[in-house]
Order: sequence, then C-alpha cells, then structure tokens
Amino acid sequence: MKLSELSVELSKRGFPAQVDGEDIDVRAVNTLDSAGAGELSFLSNKKYVSALSKTKAAAVIVAEDMQVRKGLSAIRCADPYAGVTVAIVVLHGYRKHPKWGVSGKAAVHVTASLGESPNIAEFVSIAADAKIGKNVTMYPGCYVGERVKMGDDCVLFPNVVVYDDCVLGDRVTVHAGTVIGQDGLGYAPVGEKWIKIPQVGRTIIGDDVELGANCAVDRATLGETSIGDGTKFGNVMVIGHGAKIGPDCMFVGLVGVAGSAKIGRHVTIGGHSAVNGHITVGDNVSAGGMTGLMQNVRDGEKVFGIPAVPVEKALRNAATAVDLGDYAKRIKQLERELAKLRDQLNRQGEVDSTSDQE
Amino acid sequence: MKLSELSVELSKRGFPAQVDGEDIDVRAVNTLDSAGAGELSFLSNKKYVSALSKTKAAAVIVAEDMQVRKGLSAIRCADPYAGVTVAIVVLHGYRKHPKWGVSGKAAVHVTASLGESPNIAEFVSIAADAKIGKNVTMYPGCYVGERVKMGDDCVLFPNVVVYDDCVLGDRVTVHAGTVIGQDGLGYAPVGEKWIKIPQVGRTIIGDDVELGANCAVDRATLGETSIGDGTKFGNVMVIGHGAKIGPDCMFVGLVGVAGSAKIGRHVTIGGHSAVNGHITVGDNVSAGGMTGLMQNVRDGEKVFGIPAVPVEKALRNAATAVDLGDYAKRIKQLERELAKLRDQLNRQGEVDSTSDQE
Amino acid sequence: MKLSELSVELSKRGFPAQVDGEDIDVRAVNTLDSAGAGELSFLSNKKYVSALSKTKAAAVIVAEDMQVRKGLSAIRCADPYAGVTVAIVVLHGYRKHPKWGVSGKAAVHVTASLGESPNIAEFVSIAADAKIGKNVTMYPGCYVGERVKMGDDCVLFPNVVVYDDCVLGDRVTVHAGTVIGQDGLGYAPVGEKWIKIPQVGRTIIGDDVELGANCAVDRATLGETSIGDGTKFGNVMVIGHGAKIGPDCMFVGLVGVAGSAKIGRHVTIGGHSAVNGHITVGDNVSAGGMTGLMQNVRDGEKVFGIPAVPVEKALRNAATAVDLGDYAKRIKQLERELAKLRDQLNRQGEVDSTSDQE
Repeated sequence: MKLSELSVELSKRGFPAQVDGEDIDVRAVNTLDSAGAGELSFLSNKKYVSALSKTKAAAVIVAEDMQVRKGLSAIRCADPYAGVTVAIVVLHGYRKHPKWGVSGKAAVHVTASLGESPNIAEFVSIAADAKIGKNVTMYPGCYVGERVKMGDDCVLFPNVVVYDDCVLGDRVTVHAGTVIGQDGLGYAPVGEKWIKIPQVGRTIIGDDVELGANCAVDRATLGETSIGDGTKFGNVMVIGHGAKIGPDCMFVGLVGVAGSAKIGRHVTIGGHSAVNGHITVGDNVSAGGMTGLMQNVRDGEKVFGIPAVPVEKALRNAATAVDLGDYAKRIKQLERELAKLRDQLNRQGEVDSTSDQE
Repeated sequence: MKLSELSVELSKRGFPAQVDGEDIDVRAVNTLDSAGAGELSFLSNKKYVSALSKTKAAAVIVAEDMQVRKGLSAIRCADPYAGVTVAIVVLHGYRKHPKWGVSGKAAVHVTASLGESPNIAEFVSIAADAKIGKNVTMYPGCYVGERVKMGDDCVLFPNVVVYDDCVLGDRVTVHAGTVIGQDGLGYAPVGEKWIKIPQVGRTIIGDDVELGANCAVDRATLGETSIGDGTKFGNVMVIGHGAKIGPDCMFVGLVGVAGSAKIGRHVTIGGHSAVNGHITVGDNVSAGGMTGLMQNVRDGEKVFGIPAVPVEKALRNAATAVDLGDYAKRIKQLERELAKLRDQLNRQGEVDSTSDQE
Repeated sequence: MKLSELSVELSKRGFPAQVDGEDIDVRAVNTLDSAGAGELSFLSNKKYVSALSKTKAAAVIVAEDMQVRKGLSAIRCADPYAGVTVAIVVLHGYRKHPKWGVSGKAAVHVTASLGESPNIAEFVSIAADAKIGKNVTMYPGCYVGERVKMGDDCVLFPNVVVYDDCVLGDRVTVHAGTVIGQDGLGYAPVGEKWIKIPQVGRTIIGDDVELGANCAVDRATLGETSIGDGTKFGNVMVIGHGAKIGPDCMFVGLVGVAGSAKIGRHVTIGGHSAVNGHITVGDNVSAGGMTGLMQNVRDGEKVFGIPAVPVEKALRNAATAVDLGDYAKRIKQLERELAKLRDQLNRQGEVDSTSDQE
C-alpha cells in the first residue's frame, strides 16, 4: 500500500495526515529497531528519538514537527500513536480466529441456546440454560455456567471460565485463563471459624470490555459486581465482590480492587496497585503504578504512591523517600547541634547574668 | 418466609433475634441500594447508614440499638452480619452444582478410584492411582494428577489442577483456574546457571479449606507445603514451596507467601501483601492490605505497612509518609535556621567576649 | 545408596565431597525436621542450625567446617545446597510424566506437525500449522495456537495456553495455567474511548526456560516480547508487551514487568516487585522483594525498596521508615525548640544591646 493511500485511510478515520518525501509502498508495520525494507515504523514516545535516526524502516509515521533524516519517507499527523494504530489495522488487521462451527467435541447442554454463526471449539462446555448471542467465538477449554447470558460478537480465548448466572454484553473479549463470577471471599466470623455466606449475586460485564489473561472477577454476595462498557484490563486483575467499575477504565496489570469499591468512569490505574474496599474513586482519576488507593479519590485527581496522594506531591515524597536514612541522620545531627547551641546559649546567658550581677 | 420464622432460624443457630415491627413475608436478601418489595436487607457496616434510611427493602436486619424509619420492619440481633449470613443460607441456600455422574467425556484412569456419588464433568482428567472420596464434584477441565488423594465432599470448579501426589482433605472447595502442587522455584545456582532441584515434596490441603480463583500453591522441595483446616483464600494467592499455613486463616487477594514461611492459626492478611521467606508469623496475627511482612511477627500482633509494624504506629508512619516531601523541606529549613542562630549566637558571643575584653 | 557412592556422584558433577563418619546407606532426601531412618538431610541456611542438632536423619550434607553431633554421618562439601541438589537428582530423579502417546481424545489439527515420540494428553488442542519438536509432553487442557513453533523436549503442564505464532525453544517447561502470547494492553486513546491496536507481534521463549503456574506473558504489539535462554520464573509473573528479558534470570512470584522494559542477563527479582515500562535493567542486577524499579538500573546493582535504591541505602531507609511517625514528632520538637532558642537568643541580644546602649 502506498503511503498516500494510507494517509487517506488515516484522514478518513479522523487523523488528518500527509506524506512527506517519496510516496513509497509499505506492506507491514514494525518497531524502529526491527523494521526493514518495505516496513513502516513510527515515533510517538520521544524517548526513542535516537532509534528514529538509526531505523532501517522504509518509512515512518511521526508528529508534524518531528525531524527525520533526509531520504526517509514520512507520514505526518498530529497523533502518531493513533496514526500507527490505523496503519496496523489497515495493513495487518485484527486476529482471524480458527473456524470451528460447533465442534463435535464441545459439550453444549441441550437447554443452552446459541445465536447465529457460533464458533465453538472442542472441549468447550456450555451449561444448562445459557443464552449465547450470535457470532460468538469460544476457544478450547472454556466453561460457560448455567444461565449465563452472553451478547453478540464475544470472543473467549482458551480456558476462560464464566460462572453461573453472570452476564456479558456485546463484543466482550476475554483472554485465556480469566475467571468471571467465582465466589467472593464472604464469610461471617464466628469465633475463629469462618461461616461461608452464599454468594448469590452475579457479575455483569458491559459491552466492548476486554479482559487480559488470568484475571479473577468475583461475583457479588448480593446484587452485582460490574464492569462498565468499554473498560479494558491487562492481566491478573483481581476484582472483589460487589465492586463497581465504571465505563472506559483501563487497569494495567496485577491490580487488586477490594470488595464494594466504587470506581468511576475513565479511570486509569497503573500496574501493581491496590484499591481499598468500600471506597469511591471518582471519574477520570488516574493512578500511577504501585499505588495504594486507601481512601476516596475525587474526580479528575492524578494520584501516586502508597498511600496515594496527588502525583506532584507523591513525586516529592518519593524523592525524599529514597534518601530517608540520610534525613534521619540529619534530624539526629540537628538534635545534637540544637542541644549544643542551647548549652552554649545557656552558658552565655549565665556569663551575661554573671556580668549583669557584677 | 415470615420474619418471625427467620428469627427462629437465627436463634436456633446461636444468634438470638427478634422482630421489631410488622411480621411480613420476605423471599430474598439484597443490598440496601437494590432491595425492593419482598426483599430483606441488612446494615452491618456503619458506613452505609444513609443507605438504610433510603432503602426500599421490605425489612432489614440491624443491630439491637440501630434506629430504623417508622414502618420498616426489622429483625434485631447482636451481630447483623452473622444474621444476614443465616438469612441468605435459609432463603437462598448454597450453589447447586450441575449433575454429571461420571461424564462419558471425562478421562478417568482405570487405576484411579472414585468414592460414592461421583459428579465428574466432561473434559476432566483423573490420572493413575488417584484416590477420590465420595460425593466429589469436578467441573469441566479439571486435572487431578497421579496418586493424588482427595477427601469427601470436595468441589473443584473448572480448570483446577492438582499435581501428582498432593493431598486434599474433606470439604475442600477450589475455585476455577487454581493450581495446587506445581514445582517450587528451587534451583541451585552454579555460576550464572540454575540447576533444577527436583521438587519431590507435595502439597497438603486441610479439611474445609476454600481457595479462590487462579491461586498457585507450590509443592515442597522436600516434605510438604501445607494449608491448615478451615483456611480461606481469595483469588491469586501465591504460596511458595515449603510454606506452612495454619488453620482458620483468611488471606484476601494477590498475597504472596515466600518459601518456607510459617504462618500460625487464624491469621488474616489483607490484599496485595507479601510474606518473606523463612519467617514465622504467629497465631492470630492480622496484617492490613499492602503490607510487607519482612520479619517474624509475634502472636496476636496487628500489623500494617511496608515494612510491617504495629498498626497504630503504621498509621502514624503513613500520616507522615503522605507529607514526606514537606518534612524534608522542614528539615532543610531547620538546618538553615539553626545555622543562622549559630552565627547569631557566635557573633553575640564575640560581641560579649569583645565587651569582656574591654 | 552408600554415602561414599553419593560422594562420588557429587565429585563427578564438580562438587568434591567426602564422607565423615560411618558409610551408611540412604534411600531418600528429606528436611532436617522430617527426615528419619534411611533418610539424608542437609544444612545450607545457617538459620536452621538448631534443627541440625535435633534431626533424626541418618546422615546430612554439610559444609566442610560445620560441626555435627557425634555418630551422625556426614557428606562434607563446599556448597551443601548444590550437594543436596545432586543427592535429590540421584536418589529421587525428576518427575516421570504419564505416557499418553497421542491421546485419541486430543484434537491435533491435520496441518499441525508433531516430532518424534510425542506425548500428548487427552483434551489438548493443537491448532493449524503448529510445529512441535520431538519428545514434547503436553498435559490435559493445553492449547497450542496456529503457527506456534515449539522445540524439542518441552513440557506443558495442564491448561497451558500458547497463542498463535509464538515460539518456544528446546527444553521449555511451563507450569499449569500459564498463558503465553495473549494480546498486550495496546489501545490508542481517542477521547475517553480506547481503540484497540492489533497486537501483531509475538512472544519468544528461549531454551531451558521454566515458567511457574498462572503466569501471563504478553505478545508484542510489533516485533517480540522475549524471555532469554535459561531464565526461570515462579508463579503469576505478568510480563507486558514488548518486554525483553535476558537469559538466566530468576523472578520469584507476583512480579509485574511493564511493556517495553529491557532486562539484562542473570537478573534476579524478589517476589511482589514491579518493573516500570520502557526502562533498562542491567546485567546481574538483583532486586529484593516488594521492590519498585522505577528507573534504569546499572549493571551489577543490588537494589531494594519502593522506589528501588541500592540495598544498603534501602535498608537504612527502611529502618527510618518504620519509625517515620516518631521522626515527624522529632522534627516538630526541633521546630519548637529552635523557636524557643531563637526567642531566648533574641531576648538575650536585646538585653545585650540594651546593656550596649547603657
């Protein structure tokens, strides 16, 4: 595909772009380091600007004001990251799934219903009274529990488990090994024993949600654990029972959200973070990696640290934390010097009062 | 069921209760926010007291001294959380599993033995010489290794894996995707290479243990990794080889316990915490979320923080940590002022000595 | 096997050893606490020296200068940990896998190719155009995607998933539930929506790699996520898209590595740690548990803490952190005392200047 054709595709999707240099053909997208003949690359993170000067890519997508070396063709647009996304979609497309129809080696309960164009692999189990939308793909080893409702165009990668009564919207993608709707950690303490509380709620996953691999999203004790439309999770997210997560959120990886936490819309949480139970995190909050959200966070706040504080403050705190032992020394030094000074002052005072008395 | 009948059920189970208001019928339990006609709710966490005043529930379970609005029927008892547990058990009951008998699509080795009333789903594999107790349910995709011993009344949700030679007690419940008995991270370093140490130990899970989804419990190098009777895990717990965890513990989620750690009985550990290898954590210890247990902890201690310290101290530490950058400034300010004071004092001293010399 | 024969085995493998005491027969290796008649134990971690004096083991492997009680036979060698590794290998050997051949209940696509001596269990799926080396074992429930390439002598424990196009070297061992090659968290933000970037890269796992249970290793957006030869992971490692991990590393458990991080060779990372995206961690770096590697780390550094700093500094920081609230008090106390001193000094100065004026 010619760069000019690709530019048209970008512009059509709302990212006006133009070719700078020769209008060559590209057939694939690759990283600056690895791209070679016929391959298109991109620069979005300024960190990699030195890789830009050395790339063997045939052409690059860059910002409008980014300099490229002479002879290297470029597509220029305001947001190169969006631009390369379009280029990957156009040149590579999304994954094509194997076609199984309904495999003779799947186990679909007679009372389960499948919509049009099912694509159900071998060793998938679909339990009684499950209702599956049209054009749903399930890779081998998935389990869909009794009375589960699933919308259209969902994709479950291998070994995904959806417990009984849970609900998935349309166009939900779940990566391998993720579990939806297992019992929450609900026990009443009686002496030192834990009496299990039946977890009679369920989990509801909105439209266009994508969950990474090996996540675990509890069902609710009562009512619902929910994940809003358009929210994206990385791998190994652990969501406690009764948590409500808004639409269009993005959580990176190894994030734990404790039970009954309420998270607003368009919240981003960096990897290895934790959200306390029963707290409210507002809309458009952004939390850095390794952050501990212990208390409510207001709309639009950017927070970081353990415990989480506004990010500028957190960075100052972190800058202190790395030298904490030195500060302790300085405090001790201050105490010693202050004591000395006090002594000196007192001695002088005595001298003074002595002289006064003279 | 009438509130009065439910009160009798509570009292029978050791939670004396009485009806306050009209003795109406309830058919289900729900949260204060979601409950409607015919539904019973409850207040246990004071945080939700405003939800109590607005609930559309037909009745509520509350503490003896909790005020409810006029016309709202209540069951009053000392421990409303225990009370609602009983109500959920009585009105909803525990999950009823599908009935598979021994599915023709399961693979049970001829030398494996199954107790009475097996309930083994399609795509379950049970390997040679495994001994399974009576009334055991295994959902699709479970794997039970060679020579595994499993007690009665166990439930393995989909895709649970139990490695060879491990032992599960009676009434063990394991949620989907959890792995028991994989090799520990045991290697002898030789130069920069890692020589694998055969992990010839096993994992022993006590009676009445419940493990959440996607946990990983190593087998021991030698001897046993063990989890005591009645212990409950949330999701994604990672237990290192040779760790010994006592009975009646509760770990929340994303907790890592390093190899050879010894944890006493009735220990609770909040989410996203870590326990160092080879340390001893006493009985009845309670650790907050995001806590790093680096050293031994004595019986009965309540700890929090990274590194873990007694919780009151940890809260004071955290209150300082959030303003750490400011404290650094104050230290610098102190140093400046102290220097100034010292100068001033020295100058004055000179003045004094000057006047002395006069 | 006689101790003298075992000593010969150790010496042959590069760990010169000799028998001290009676040359008895041993048949198994066990821990100091659990070993009994006919069993060999060992002391490597000095922490357990008291267990050595009480052990009922028939013999022990110990360092050359370690005292053992009279009558207890010993094999002495410079590195008892390496010694016991050899002893376990010789006396117990590595796990023997069940033999399935190619199970009639596996689903191997007609275009997939299997090398010599395949050992493919029931309920394994191998997709189109996959190329599997010789002598590969796959336990039940594994899924190997389209066009995957896998070397010789690999072992996939139950329910391992390898996505399309990924590559595994020779002698790779993957524990149960681990997922290789799922899509990375790659989205272009457009307003509050997230537009999925097709993840067209792949994951490459080197020779002799061992991965624990329930890990998740992303494929790359473009190019490769890679894990070098000889690297070993514990459980629940989460590796972001495009990360490059060198050879001979060891990561303990619950470690998250964010996208595009570059980690050198022979890097060890303790449990519950996190590596920031796009940073470079040098060769031979060692990071303690619960460490946050936020910025580049130079070759050979030993780091610890959140954020990571050199370990001696981190330990001083931690020693301060546990008393942080007290330090805050001391700062306030210093401020009060300094103010008092200043007052006193000023008053004295006034007195002085008053007397000057007299």
